[in-house]
Amino acid sequence: MLNFAVGPVPQNNNVSAIGGRDVPYFRTPEFSRIMLESERLILELAFAPKDSRAIFSTSSGTGAMEAVVMGTLDPRRDKALVVDGGSFGRRFRELLALHGIPHDAIELEHGAPLRVEDLDAYSGGDHTAFLVNLGETSQGVLYDANLIADFCKREDLFLVVDGISSFLADPFDMGEMGADVLITDAQKALACPPGVAPIVLSPRALERVRRVVQPCSYFNLGLMLENQLRGQTPFTPAVGIILQIHERLRQLQEAGGAAAEVALRASVAEDFRRRVSESGLPLEMRLTSPSNAVTFLKTIGFSARRLVDDMKETYGIWLCPNGGEGAETSFRVGHIGEHPLSDNALLVAALLDAQRRGIMRP
Amino acid sequence: MLNFAVGPVPQNNNVSAIGGRDVPYFRTPEFSRIMLESERLILELAFAPKDSRAIFSTSSGTGAMEAVVMGTLDPRRDKALVVDGGSFGRRFRELLALHGIPHDAIELEHGAPLRVEDLDAYSGGDHTAFLVNLGETSQGVLYDANLIADFCKREDLFLVVDGISSFLADPFDMGEMGADVLITDAQKALACPPGVAPIVLSPRALERVRRVVQPCSYFNLGLMLENQLRGQTPFTPAVGIILQIHERLRQLQEAGGAAAEVALRASVAEDFRRRVSESGLPLEMRLTSPSNAVTFLKTIGFSARRLVDDMKETYGIWLCPNGGEGAETSFRVGHIGEHPLSDNALLVAALLDAQRRGIMRP
Repeated sequence: MLNFAVGPVPQNNNVSAIGGRDVPYFRTPEFSRIMLESERLILELAFAPKDSRAIFSTSSGTGAMEAVVMGTLDPRRDKALVVDGGSFGRRFRELLALHGIPHDAIELEHGAPLRVEDLDAYSGGDHTAFLVNLGETSQGVLYDANLIADFCKREDLFLVVDGISSFLADPFDMGEMGADVLITDAQKALACPPGVAPIVLSPRALERVRRVVQPCSYFNLGLMLENQLRGQTPFTPAVGIILQIHERLRQLQEAGGAAAEVALRASVAEDFRRRVSESGLPLEMRLTSPSNAVTFLKTIGFSARRLVDDMKETYGIWLCPNGGEGAETSFRVGHIGEHPLSDNALLVAALLDAQRRGIMRP
Repeated sequence: MLNFAVGPVPQNNNVSAIGGRDVPYFRTPEFSRIMLESERLILELAFAPKDSRAIFSTSSGTGAMEAVVMGTLDPRRDKALVVDGGSFGRRFRELLALHGIPHDAIELEHGAPLRVEDLDAYSGGDHTAFLVNLGETSQGVLYDANLIADFCKREDLFLVVDGISSFLADPFDMGEMGADVLITDAQKALACPPGVAPIVLSPRALERVRRVVQPCSYFNLGLMLENQLRGQTPFTPAVGIILQIHERLRQLQEAGGAAAEVALRASVAEDFRRRVSESGLPLEMRLTSPSNAVTFLKTIGFSARRLVDDMKETYGIWLCPNGGEGAETSFRVGHIGEHPLSDNALLVAALLDAQRRGIMRP
């Protein structure tokens, strides 16, 4: 199966090999060293400001999003501004509502980038925090980090970045952006199995964690941070996945760090987009502020659902279907994980073959 | 490394092989079928009553414990009785406190079994729920399921069983016991990597989930149940571990179900205990109501900590150290996971050799 999902994604052999072994007992100095090294590495890869910390939540990225909402925002003192431009931005909004955090939402048309005027409408307001999924995976859109950074600095907003699918796929410098929290996930550009979501916290976020009442024990950020001081977790983590993340972080460092990985992702995405452009296929790519992680494609006059099904059945190729009303008219192709350029060549060949076979007829 | 931890434990080859492969995309009918089959299999293995349901939480077992406390107990209507005889019973108690569930705790001396008089003291009270970790892993003690069942039926208590380390190691019949919730974990007798905690819910528990306000989105039992109807999860699960659990559940069914697995665990535990008895080693086993999952051993006149360290360094054998004040005087040996009887022979040989090398001197 050639998997172009936006997670889980194809792994490299070293990561897979760890998954094939027994999982060791973890309340040991050996595991602690690995956890501490992973913390150091992810802080480096995120360009986290001095005295930042990282923890590894055994949950989905959404679990980490909820942990951050519960653990850094105070229902009595905060008012958040959240960007809602697709399913994942909407999720942040729902979490704020569930946990009683007063908030306003910047609702974007699906697929639209965030513009300066969207933000300016909230200048000088009483907001204390800004939440954004930097890459809105469901739409293939990457929001403008500089725009967000400027606004948040000017308004002195606590900035929470969901970088679940964009971290290591698109440029991100936590310190430069002034982000206070980075949430990411194992099965995106880290290309490990899902189950662990790393969270990076700036000193300002750490101060909030100390101050905010932590309403849930499993997601208690303070407890996680305290345990991570000695390279451990409060409860049994997904040890195997954590070992795989460590291996992958080491690989990334050795291969030149975040810049090299982002350049690699960009080259894979650009290669795919060039091939599609040159193919003459009846596909329209959404290329207004696209993320390197994924390309959003609209079908011109044929059923996307039928194409996704056919690609799977005929070629063993997994494309990423869209939900809801976009299911018939669009799909996505992921560029994260172990995807040599030959995968793109195969995919475009299969698309052309599907066209020849009549799958792209109305 | 010969791993006698009580989780993570040695896996069998088929389970490991799945861990060594790429993780497939999961919003597919194929994955749904696997999830639905896993639900059916775990209900069978737990002897769950008709119309029970099972879900798979991507978290530690403690996460599942908290999900159950938040999702089935009502701070305004419930009063719980909880057995606190070691670190894991204590954890339930702390979760009840955190979530504002009024409760009383039956505090047992560590290592002591639950007795009829411990329960009778609460007869005719105003409790509505009973929470117990059937096997108190930290002490190697298995509580008397019949005793608990009789008491809960007589008092009409909603019965939550943490079977994290005892499920499939010790006899358990959810229907017969009248248990409403079973919480277990991937890395115990299921012998998979940690990261996923299955939860089985009786019809009475399902009714509670519908009624109780779910304060957390990630652990929303109602949302998990709704998604599991079609073999899915609300958020990205630890797909790889779920596939491994499915494989293991199928193996267990084919090998004769829960009874066969419990008999196998009993034979491994008995074999170890017989070998220690016959060895003349200065070790005292705690055999008052022991779980098949683990043996708790006291050292006679020597440092347990030193022995645990030496076994690891000299023989590559991992014993399970105890925390707190018991660390110098006791340790544990797990019997779950892929442990042929030859592992016990090796362990006892190494213990005898350590004795000869003077590790068991005061």
